[in-house]
Amino acid sequence: MSVPTLMKYCDRCGGTLEYKIPADDTRNRYVCTVCDKVHYENPRVIVGTLPVWENKILLCQRAIEPRYGKWTLPAGFYEIGESLEEGAARETFEEARAHIVIDHLFSVISMPEIGQVHMIFLSRLTEPTFSAGEESLDVRLFSEAEIPWEEISFRTVSRTLRLFFEDRQRNHYTLHLSSLARNQ
Amino acid sequence: MSVPTLMKYCDRCGGTLEYKIPADDTRNRYVCTVCDKVHYENPRVIVGTLPVWENKILLCQRAIEPRYGKWTLPAGFYEIGESLEEGAARETFEEARAHIVIDHLFSVISMPEIGQVHMIFLSRLTEPTFSAGEESLDVRLFSEAEIPWEEISFRTVSRTLRLFFEDRQRNHYTLHLSSLARNQ
Repeated sequence: MSVPTLMKYCDRCGGTLEYKIPADDTRNRYVCTVCDKVHYENPRVIVGTLPVWENKILLCQRAIEPRYGKWTLPAGFYEIGESLEEGAARETFEEARAHIVIDHLFSVISMPEIGQVHMIFLSRLTEPTFSAGEESLDVRLFSEAEIPWEEISFRTVSRTLRLFFEDRQRNHYTLHLSSLARNQ
Repeated sequence: MSVPTLMKYCDRCGGTLEYKIPADDTRNRYVCTVCDKVHYENPRVIVGTLPVWENKILLCQRAIEPRYGKWTLPAGFYEIGESLEEGAARETFEEARAHIVIDHLFSVISMPEIGQVHMIFLSRLTEPTFSAGEESLDVRLFSEAEIPWEEISFRTVSRTLRLFFEDRQRNHYTLHLSSLARNQ
């Protein structure tokens, strides 16, 4: 990130932080002027799924900012204490109240400037039962022709959906690794 | 992580933190008692490569703790501002002064309890030129028979090496997704 999260105080001793390159390092970090603790900031992982039922895809309409009202795949921040697959399944249940079986890792998109990696798993609904979780206004199944392309929340989601339909067309699903720049 | 990183003070206002479940959340977080800032802790990504030259694998002997003196694949913390592949190539150059071409994502290992994900890319050295970076004592090429299995630094590394030799045996390389528990 060009502008990192603003940190002012040391979370260990409360001392004032300075933004500088620590000894034995090559990048600027927040370093405590009192106890020397280095406060690392690392990219965060977003885990989610592309849930399939018959020839349709499950999408959630966002009930939260950013992109309130737009449609998205169920996904959210990966948490400590779970595997990637568990995190992806948890987000799918939280946002769509849907139970899934995960098939495989499908789309991994680095977003260097905002310090995120999006990891989306192909999955299958175990039954066509779902409903809006707290962060969703609505949850629906869409065929390819029904996808509201102009109302998709994020470029990572529209890219992942396009890759899915391409792979489905040739009946061969692979892992897709890519990057997305801020203005791309 | 069962015991999270100890944070005592808010990095925004310096107020005292409390470890509790914030409103609209389901897990304990460090929340500021003064300004209410929630301090999220998320898993960190370790990126690295398995560099191949002819029938040999490049390993680095660690010059840092933990596991000083043990052999490892070049890898380290993924940083903001780079793609996963750029991070993996950067670590390979920092630790082994080696230039590589990345082939594909090979091994992804979740370590839920310590809040890490290890992502290792298959790569090829562009030339058999390498040397110990600052965090390495030595860097060498090993054939399968020469791998110092008892002197490998981490279980993620030995698992990834075994998967590589298995895939090479059948001449078919795939992505391997797995988890590793603390006592596994």
